[in-house]
Amino acid sequence: MAAQPSRRSAHKQLPRAVREQQILDAAGQVFSRRGYHAASMGEIAELAGISKPMVYAYLGNKEELFIACLRREGARVMAAVAEVAPFDLDRPVEEQFHRGLRAFFRFVAEHRDTWAVLHNQGRRQEPFGSVIAEIRLRWVEAIAAGLRAGQRKGTAAAPDVLPAAYAIVGAAESVADWLVEQEEGDPERLADGLAALLWGGFAP
Amino acid sequence: MAAQPSRRSAHKQLPRAVREQQILDAAGQVFSRRGYHAASMGEIAELAGISKPMVYAYLGNKEELFIACLRREGARVMAAVAEVAPFDLDRPVEEQFHRGLRAFFRFVAEHRDTWAVLHNQGRRQEPFGSVIAEIRLRWVEAIAAGLRAGQRKGTAAAPDVLPAAYAIVGAAESVADWLVEQEEGDPERLADGLAALLWGGFAP
Repeated sequence: MAAQPSRRSAHKQLPRAVREQQILDAAGQVFSRRGYHAASMGEIAELAGISKPMVYAYLGNKEELFIACLRREGARVMAAVAEVAPFDLDRPVEEQFHRGLRAFFRFVAEHRDTWAVLHNQGRRQEPFGSVIAEIRLRWVEAIAAGLRAGQRKGTAAAPDVLPAAYAIVGAAESVADWLVEQEEGDPERLADGLAALLWGGFAP
Repeated sequence: MAAQPSRRSAHKQLPRAVREQQILDAAGQVFSRRGYHAASMGEIAELAGISKPMVYAYLGNKEELFIACLRREGARVMAAVAEVAPFDLDRPVEEQFHRGLRAFFRFVAEHRDTWAVLHNQGRRQEPFGSVIAEIRLRWVEAIAAGLRAGQRKGTAAAPDVLPAAYAIVGAAESVADWLVEQEEGDPERLADGLAALLWGGFAP
Protein backbone atom coordinates (compact mmCIF):
# COMPACT_ATOMS: atom_id res chain seq x y z
CA MET A 1 0.00 0.00 0.00
CA ALA A 2 3.00 2.28 0.46
CA ALA A 3 3.48 2.57 -3.27
CA GLN A 4 -0.13 3.51 -3.87
CA PRO A 5 0.04 7.29 -3.31
CA SER A 6 3.08 7.79 -5.50
CA ARG A 7 1.52 5.58 -8.20
CA ARG A 8 -1.61 7.67 -7.98
CA SER A 9 0.26 10.93 -8.22
CA ALA A 10 2.33 9.59 -11.10
CA HIS A 11 -0.91 8.79 -12.87
CA LYS A 12 -2.29 12.22 -12.13
CA GLN A 13 0.44 13.74 -14.23
CA LEU A 14 -0.68 11.82 -17.30
CA PRO A 15 -2.69 13.78 -19.84
CA ARG A 16 -6.34 12.82 -19.99
CA ALA A 17 -5.99 11.35 -23.50
CA VAL A 18 -3.20 9.01 -22.40
CA ARG A 19 -5.13 7.90 -19.33
CA GLU A 20 -8.18 7.22 -21.47
CA GLN A 21 -6.17 5.07 -23.84
CA GLN A 22 -4.82 3.07 -20.90
CA ILE A 23 -8.34 2.46 -19.65
CA LEU A 24 -9.52 1.49 -23.12
CA ASP A 25 -6.57 -0.91 -23.52
CA ALA A 26 -7.49 -2.54 -20.22
CA ALA A 27 -11.19 -2.60 -21.07
CA GLY A 28 -10.49 -4.14 -24.48
CA GLN A 29 -8.45 -6.90 -22.84
CA VAL A 30 -11.02 -7.64 -20.16
CA PHE A 31 -13.98 -7.58 -22.57
CA SER A 32 -12.13 -9.89 -24.98
CA ARG A 33 -11.26 -12.30 -22.20
CA ARG A 34 -14.58 -12.36 -20.32
CA GLY A 35 -17.22 -11.18 -22.79
CA TYR A 36 -19.35 -8.12 -22.10
CA HIS A 37 -21.58 -9.50 -19.38
CA ALA A 38 -18.93 -11.16 -17.23
CA ALA A 39 -16.45 -8.29 -17.56
CA SER A 40 -16.17 -6.32 -14.32
CA MET A 41 -15.30 -2.67 -13.92
CA GLY A 42 -13.11 -3.67 -10.97
CA GLU A 43 -10.92 -5.88 -13.14
CA ILE A 44 -10.69 -3.18 -15.81
CA ALA A 45 -9.66 -0.59 -13.19
CA GLU A 46 -7.08 -2.95 -11.70
CA LEU A 47 -5.55 -3.72 -15.10
CA ALA A 48 -5.46 -0.01 -15.95
CA GLY A 49 -3.81 0.63 -12.58
CA ILE A 50 -6.34 3.17 -11.39
CA SER A 51 -9.33 3.22 -9.08
CA LYS A 52 -12.79 2.14 -10.20
CA PRO A 53 -14.33 5.59 -9.54
CA MET A 54 -11.66 7.08 -11.79
CA VAL A 55 -12.64 4.70 -14.61
CA TYR A 56 -16.25 5.88 -14.27
CA ALA A 57 -15.10 9.51 -14.11
CA TYR A 58 -13.06 9.18 -17.30
CA LEU A 59 -15.20 7.00 -19.53
CA GLY A 60 -18.50 6.33 -17.83
CA ASN A 61 -20.18 3.04 -17.02
CA LYS A 62 -19.56 -0.39 -18.53
CA GLU A 63 -21.91 0.21 -21.44
CA GLU A 64 -20.23 3.52 -22.30
CA LEU A 65 -16.83 1.91 -21.97
CA PHE A 66 -17.81 -0.86 -24.37
CA ILE A 67 -19.08 1.72 -26.86
CA ALA A 68 -15.80 3.64 -26.54
CA CYS A 69 -13.91 0.38 -27.23
CA LEU A 70 -16.12 -0.29 -30.28
CA ARG A 71 -15.48 3.19 -31.69
CA ARG A 72 -11.75 3.01 -31.10
CA GLU A 73 -11.54 -0.43 -32.69
CA GLY A 74 -13.62 0.78 -35.63
CA ALA A 75 -11.25 3.71 -36.11
CA ARG A 76 -8.26 1.36 -35.90
CA VAL A 77 -9.59 -0.95 -38.61
CA MET A 78 -10.34 2.05 -40.80
CA ALA A 79 -6.80 3.41 -40.20
CA ALA A 80 -5.19 0.03 -40.94
CA VAL A 81 -6.98 -0.10 -44.28
CA ALA A 82 -6.45 3.57 -45.13
CA GLU A 83 -2.73 3.17 -44.51
CA VAL A 84 -2.26 0.65 -47.31
CA ALA A 85 -5.16 1.76 -49.49
CA PRO A 86 -5.47 5.54 -49.17
CA PHE A 87 -8.13 7.29 -51.18
CA ASP A 88 -5.93 8.02 -54.16
CA LEU A 89 -7.49 8.63 -57.54
CA ASP A 90 -4.23 7.95 -59.32
CA ARG A 91 -4.13 4.32 -58.29
CA PRO A 92 -6.26 1.64 -59.94
CA VAL A 93 -9.38 1.11 -57.83
CA GLU A 94 -9.06 -2.67 -58.20
CA GLU A 95 -5.61 -2.58 -56.58
CA GLN A 96 -6.91 -0.35 -53.79
CA PHE A 97 -9.68 -2.79 -52.99
CA HIS A 98 -7.35 -5.72 -53.01
CA ARG A 99 -4.86 -4.03 -50.69
CA GLY A 100 -7.68 -2.79 -48.48
CA LEU A 101 -9.16 -6.26 -48.13
CA ARG A 102 -5.78 -7.69 -47.25
CA ALA A 103 -5.28 -5.09 -44.52
CA PHE A 104 -8.80 -5.67 -43.23
CA PHE A 105 -8.53 -9.44 -42.94
CA ARG A 106 -5.02 -9.20 -41.50
CA PHE A 107 -6.33 -6.84 -38.83
CA VAL A 108 -9.22 -9.14 -38.01
CA ALA A 109 -6.92 -12.20 -37.85
CA GLU A 110 -4.52 -10.38 -35.54
CA HIS A 111 -7.35 -9.26 -33.25
CA ARG A 112 -9.55 -12.33 -33.27
CA ASP A 113 -10.61 -12.13 -29.63
CA THR A 114 -11.35 -8.45 -29.83
CA TRP A 115 -13.32 -8.88 -33.04
CA ALA A 116 -15.27 -11.81 -31.63
CA VAL A 117 -16.37 -9.82 -28.61
CA LEU A 118 -16.69 -6.31 -29.96
CA HIS A 119 -18.22 -7.18 -33.30
CA ASN A 120 -19.95 -10.51 -32.86
CA GLN A 121 -21.20 -10.11 -29.33
CA GLY A 122 -21.70 -6.36 -29.66
CA ARG A 123 -23.91 -6.48 -32.69
CA ARG A 124 -26.28 -8.89 -30.96
CA GLN A 125 -27.05 -6.40 -28.26
CA GLU A 126 -28.35 -2.88 -28.18
CA PRO A 127 -27.15 -0.16 -28.00
CA PHE A 128 -23.99 -1.71 -29.45
CA GLY A 129 -25.68 -2.96 -32.62
CA SER A 130 -26.52 0.64 -33.51
CA VAL A 131 -22.95 1.79 -32.93
CA ILE A 132 -21.72 -0.98 -35.23
CA ALA A 133 -24.34 0.05 -37.80
CA GLU A 134 -22.90 3.61 -37.72
CA ILE A 135 -19.38 2.29 -38.28
CA ARG A 136 -20.67 0.09 -41.10
CA LEU A 137 -22.24 3.15 -42.73
CA ARG A 138 -18.89 4.93 -42.81
CA TRP A 139 -17.43 1.91 -44.61
CA VAL A 140 -20.27 1.93 -47.11
CA GLU A 141 -19.66 5.61 -47.81
CA ALA A 142 -15.91 5.14 -48.22
CA ILE A 143 -16.37 2.18 -50.57
CA ALA A 144 -19.07 3.98 -52.56
CA ALA A 145 -16.67 6.91 -53.01
CA GLY A 146 -13.99 4.50 -54.24
CA LEU A 147 -16.37 2.88 -56.71
CA ARG A 148 -17.58 6.25 -58.01
CA ALA A 149 -13.98 7.30 -58.56
CA GLY A 150 -13.37 4.05 -60.41
CA GLN A 151 -16.43 4.63 -62.57
CA ARG A 152 -15.32 8.15 -63.46
CA LYS A 153 -11.95 6.86 -64.52
CA GLY A 154 -13.47 3.90 -66.35
CA THR A 155 -11.68 1.38 -64.15
CA ALA A 156 -14.78 0.03 -62.37
CA ALA A 157 -18.19 -0.95 -63.61
CA ALA A 158 -21.00 -0.60 -61.06
CA PRO A 159 -24.36 0.68 -62.20
CA ASP A 160 -25.82 1.17 -58.70
CA VAL A 161 -23.02 2.24 -56.45
CA LEU A 162 -24.78 2.30 -53.08
CA PRO A 163 -26.17 -1.26 -53.06
CA ALA A 164 -22.84 -2.44 -54.49
CA ALA A 165 -21.07 -0.81 -51.55
CA TYR A 166 -23.49 -2.47 -49.13
CA ALA A 167 -22.81 -5.78 -50.84
CA ILE A 168 -19.04 -5.38 -50.42
CA VAL A 169 -19.30 -4.40 -46.77
CA GLY A 170 -21.71 -7.26 -46.04
CA ALA A 171 -19.47 -9.73 -47.85
CA ALA A 172 -16.31 -8.62 -46.03
CA GLU A 173 -18.05 -8.62 -42.64
CA SER A 174 -19.50 -12.08 -43.19
CA VAL A 175 -16.15 -13.54 -44.23
CA ALA A 176 -14.43 -11.83 -41.27
CA ASP A 177 -16.95 -13.36 -38.86
CA TRP A 178 -16.23 -16.73 -40.38
CA LEU A 179 -12.47 -16.15 -40.16
CA VAL A 180 -12.49 -15.47 -36.41
CA GLU A 181 -14.36 -18.73 -35.81
CA GLN A 182 -11.64 -20.77 -37.56
CA GLU A 183 -8.70 -22.22 -35.71
CA GLU A 184 -6.45 -21.07 -38.50
CA GLY A 185 -7.38 -19.42 -41.78
CA ASP A 186 -5.09 -17.37 -43.95
CA PRO A 187 -6.24 -13.72 -44.09
CA GLU A 188 -4.24 -12.97 -47.24
CA ARG A 189 -5.76 -15.88 -49.07
CA LEU A 190 -9.26 -14.85 -48.00
CA ALA A 191 -8.57 -11.30 -49.18
CA ASP A 192 -7.22 -12.55 -52.51
CA GLY A 193 -10.29 -14.76 -52.93
CA LEU A 194 -12.77 -12.02 -52.15
CA ALA A 195 -10.93 -9.49 -54.30
CA ALA A 196 -10.93 -11.94 -57.20
CA LEU A 197 -14.64 -12.56 -56.65
CA LEU A 198 -15.47 -8.85 -56.48
CA TRP A 199 -13.36 -8.05 -59.46
CA GLY A 200 -13.83 -11.01 -61.70
CA GLY A 201 -17.00 -12.66 -60.42
CA PHE A 202 -17.82 -16.35 -60.48
CA ALA A 203 -17.82 -16.58 -64.23
CA PRO A 204 -15.43 -19.42 -65.12
CA MET B 1 -69.76 -12.10 -24.49
CA ALA B 2 -72.55 -14.31 -25.78
CA ALA B 3 -70.57 -15.26 -28.87
CA GLN B 4 -67.47 -16.16 -26.88
CA PRO B 5 -68.24 -19.79 -25.98
CA SER B 6 -69.23 -20.79 -29.50
CA ARG B 7 -66.13 -19.03 -30.89
CA ARG B 8 -64.03 -20.90 -28.39
CA SER B 9 -65.56 -24.26 -29.21
CA ALA B 10 -65.23 -23.60 -32.95
CA HIS B 11 -61.53 -22.98 -32.35
CA LYS B 12 -61.22 -26.13 -30.34
CA GLN B 13 -62.06 -28.18 -33.39
CA LEU B 14 -59.06 -26.78 -35.29
CA PRO B 15 -56.05 -29.07 -35.59
CA ARG B 16 -53.09 -27.99 -33.54
CA ALA B 17 -51.00 -27.12 -36.61
CA VAL B 18 -53.68 -24.76 -37.94
CA ARG B 19 -54.10 -23.10 -34.59
CA GLU B 20 -50.35 -22.61 -34.31
CA GLN B 21 -50.20 -20.97 -37.72
CA GLN B 22 -52.99 -18.59 -36.69
CA ILE B 23 -51.07 -17.63 -33.58
CA LEU B 24 -47.88 -17.16 -35.58
CA ASP B 25 -49.72 -15.00 -38.13
CA ALA B 26 -51.06 -12.83 -35.32
CA ALA B 27 -47.67 -12.71 -33.59
CA GLY B 28 -45.91 -11.76 -36.83
CA GLN B 29 -48.33 -8.89 -37.33
CA VAL B 30 -48.06 -7.60 -33.77
CA PHE B 31 -44.26 -7.90 -33.67
CA SER B 32 -43.98 -6.09 -37.02
CA ARG B 33 -46.29 -3.30 -35.86
CA ARG B 34 -44.95 -2.78 -32.33
CA GLY B 35 -41.43 -4.22 -32.30
CA TYR B 36 -40.42 -7.01 -29.94
CA HIS B 37 -40.39 -5.12 -26.67
CA ALA B 38 -43.69 -3.27 -27.03
CA ALA B 39 -45.56 -6.29 -28.43
CA SER B 40 -47.97 -7.74 -25.87
CA MET B 41 -49.12 -11.33 -25.59
CA GLY B 42 -52.62 -9.98 -24.93
CA GLU B 43 -52.76 -8.26 -28.31
CA ILE B 44 -51.39 -11.35 -30.05
CA ALA B 45 -54.01 -13.54 -28.36
CA GLU B 46 -56.79 -11.11 -29.26
CA LEU B 47 -55.73 -10.96 -32.89
CA ALA B 48 -55.50 -14.76 -33.04
CA GLY B 49 -58.96 -14.95 -31.48
CA ILE B 50 -57.95 -17.15 -28.55
CA SER B 51 -57.14 -16.68 -24.89
CA LYS B 52 -53.72 -15.62 -23.67
CA PRO B 53 -53.19 -18.85 -21.66
CA MET B 54 -53.87 -20.78 -24.86
CA VAL B 55 -51.16 -18.84 -26.69
CA TYR B 56 -48.70 -19.77 -23.94
CA ALA B 57 -49.91 -23.38 -24.02
CA TYR B 58 -49.39 -23.64 -27.77
CA LEU B 59 -46.19 -21.76 -28.40
CA GLY B 60 -44.71 -20.65 -25.11
CA ASN B 61 -43.74 -17.20 -23.91
CA LYS B 62 -43.03 -14.08 -25.96
CA GLU B 63 -39.40 -15.01 -26.53
CA GLU B 64 -40.34 -18.50 -27.76
CA LEU B 65 -43.07 -17.02 -29.94
CA PHE B 66 -40.58 -14.62 -31.53
CA ILE B 67 -38.18 -17.49 -32.20
CA ALA B 68 -41.01 -19.51 -33.77
CA CYS B 69 -41.79 -16.49 -36.01
CA LEU B 70 -38.11 -16.20 -36.96
CA ARG B 71 -37.90 -19.87 -37.90
CA ARG B 72 -41.13 -19.81 -39.90
CA GLU B 73 -40.04 -16.67 -41.75
CA GLY B 74 -36.64 -18.20 -42.42
CA ALA B 75 -38.31 -21.31 -43.87
CA ARG B 76 -40.59 -19.10 -46.00
CA VAL B 77 -37.69 -17.17 -47.51
CA MET B 78 -35.90 -20.43 -48.23
CA ALA B 79 -39.06 -21.87 -49.84
CA ALA B 80 -39.62 -18.75 -51.95
CA VAL B 81 -36.08 -19.03 -53.32
CA ALA B 82 -36.17 -22.82 -53.75
CA GLU B 83 -39.39 -22.53 -55.75
CA VAL B 84 -37.79 -20.49 -58.53
CA ALA B 85 -34.23 -21.76 -58.11
CA PRO B 86 -34.42 -25.43 -57.11
CA PHE B 87 -31.18 -27.32 -56.66
CA ASP B 88 -30.99 -28.61 -60.21
CA LEU B 89 -27.65 -29.63 -61.64
CA ASP B 90 -28.95 -29.40 -65.19
CA ARG B 91 -29.49 -25.67 -65.02
CA PRO B 92 -26.66 -23.16 -65.28
CA VAL B 93 -25.60 -22.15 -61.78
CA GLU B 94 -25.41 -18.48 -62.83
CA GLU B 95 -29.08 -18.52 -63.83
CA GLN B 96 -30.00 -20.24 -60.56
CA PHE B 97 -28.26 -17.56 -58.54
CA HIS B 98 -29.86 -14.79 -60.50
CA ARG B 99 -33.36 -16.25 -60.10
CA GLY B 100 -32.71 -16.98 -56.45
CA LEU B 101 -31.59 -13.42 -55.75
CA ARG B 102 -34.68 -12.06 -57.48
CA ALA B 103 -36.96 -14.24 -55.36
CA PHE B 104 -35.06 -13.28 -52.21
CA PHE B 105 -35.23 -9.52 -52.74
CA ARG B 106 -38.86 -9.74 -53.88
CA PHE B 107 -39.71 -11.58 -50.69
CA VAL B 108 -37.90 -9.03 -48.55
CA ALA B 109 -39.58 -6.11 -50.39
CA GLU B 110 -43.01 -7.66 -49.91
CA HIS B 111 -42.37 -8.29 -46.21
CA ARG B 112 -40.49 -5.13 -45.28
CA ASP B 113 -42.04 -4.71 -41.83
CA THR B 114 -41.56 -8.34 -40.93
CA TRP B 115 -37.96 -8.30 -42.15
CA ALA B 116 -37.21 -5.08 -40.29
CA VAL B 117 -38.43 -6.52 -37.00
CA LEU B 118 -37.52 -10.18 -37.28
CA HIS B 119 -34.15 -9.76 -38.94
CA ASN B 120 -32.92 -6.30 -38.00
CA GLN B 121 -34.26 -6.09 -34.49
CA GLY B 122 -33.89 -9.81 -33.84
CA ARG B 123 -30.24 -10.06 -34.70
CA ARG B 124 -29.40 -7.29 -32.24
CA GLN B 125 -30.69 -9.28 -29.35
CA GLU B 126 -29.95 -12.67 -27.91
CA PRO B 127 -31.17 -15.40 -28.14
CA PHE B 128 -32.54 -14.25 -31.51
CA GLY B 129 -29.15 -13.42 -32.97
CA SER B 130 -28.13 -17.05 -32.56
CA VAL B 131 -31.30 -18.30 -34.26
CA ILE B 132 -30.61 -15.97 -37.19
CA ALA B 133 -27.01 -17.25 -37.28
CA GLU B 134 -28.36 -20.81 -37.60
CA ILE B 135 -30.61 -19.80 -40.49
CA ARG B 136 -27.69 -18.00 -42.11
CA LEU B 137 -25.60 -21.16 -41.86
CA ARG B 138 -28.22 -23.12 -43.80
CA TRP B 139 -28.01 -20.49 -46.55
CA VAL B 140 -24.23 -20.73 -46.58
CA GLU B 141 -24.44 -24.51 -46.96
CA ALA B 142 -27.02 -24.31 -49.75
CA ILE B 143 -24.99 -21.73 -51.66
CA ALA B 144 -21.75 -23.64 -51.15
CA ALA B 145 -23.46 -26.74 -52.58
CA GLY B 146 -24.58 -24.70 -55.60
CA LEU B 147 -21.07 -23.35 -56.16
CA ARG B 148 -19.50 -26.80 -55.85
CA ALA B 149 -21.96 -28.12 -58.41
CA GLY B 150 -21.05 -25.23 -60.71
CA GLN B 151 -17.36 -25.96 -60.27
CA ARG B 152 -17.83 -29.63 -61.10
CA LYS B 153 -19.68 -28.70 -64.28
CA GLY B 154 -17.17 -26.00 -65.12
CA THR B 155 -19.80 -23.24 -65.00
CA ALA B 156 -18.50 -21.49 -61.88
CA ALA B 157 -15.04 -20.50 -60.76
CA ALA B 158 -14.54 -20.33 -57.00
CA PRO B 159 -11.33 -21.57 -55.50
CA ASP B 160 -12.47 -21.42 -51.84
CA VAL B 161 -16.14 -22.30 -51.79
CA LEU B 162 -16.95 -21.75 -48.12
CA PRO B 163 -15.70 -18.17 -47.75
CA ALA B 164 -17.26 -17.40 -51.14
CA ALA B 165 -20.61 -18.66 -49.83
CA TYR B 166 -20.21 -16.53 -46.70
CA ALA B 167 -19.44 -13.56 -48.93
CA ILE B 168 -22.62 -14.08 -50.98
CA VAL B 169 -24.82 -14.49 -47.92
CA GLY B 170 -23.30 -11.42 -46.26
CA ALA B 171 -23.69 -9.37 -49.43
CA ALA B 172 -27.34 -10.37 -49.94
CA GLU B 173 -28.19 -9.76 -46.29
CA SER B 174 -26.54 -6.36 -46.27
CA VAL B 175 -28.34 -5.26 -49.45
CA ALA B 176 -31.66 -6.59 -48.07
CA ASP B 177 -31.21 -4.57 -44.87
CA TRP B 178 -30.59 -1.50 -46.96
CA LEU B 179 -33.62 -2.26 -49.14
CA VAL B 180 -36.07 -2.35 -46.22
CA GLU B 181 -34.84 1.05 -45.07
CA GLN B 182 -35.68 2.64 -48.42
CA GLU B 183 -39.06 4.20 -49.15
CA GLU B 184 -39.02 2.53 -52.52
CA GLY B 185 -36.29 0.43 -54.12
CA ASP B 186 -36.76 -2.05 -56.93
CA PRO B 187 -36.01 -5.59 -55.72
CA GLU B 188 -35.55 -6.95 -59.26
CA ARG B 189 -33.04 -4.24 -60.10
CA LEU B 190 -31.12 -4.92 -56.89
CA ALA B 191 -31.08 -8.63 -57.70
CA ASP B 192 -29.90 -7.98 -61.24
CA GLY B 193 -27.16 -5.69 -59.92
CA LEU B 194 -25.93 -8.15 -57.32
CA ALA B 195 -26.10 -11.07 -59.74
CA ALA B 196 -24.07 -9.08 -62.28
CA LEU B 197 -21.56 -8.19 -59.59
CA LEU B 198 -21.25 -11.78 -58.36
CA TRP B 199 -20.99 -13.15 -61.83
CA GLY B 200 -19.02 -10.52 -63.66
CA GLY B 201 -17.33 -8.53 -60.91
CA PHE B 202 -16.48 -4.86 -60.98
CA ALA B 203 -14.03 -5.19 -63.83
CA PRO B 204 -15.15 -2.67 -66.45
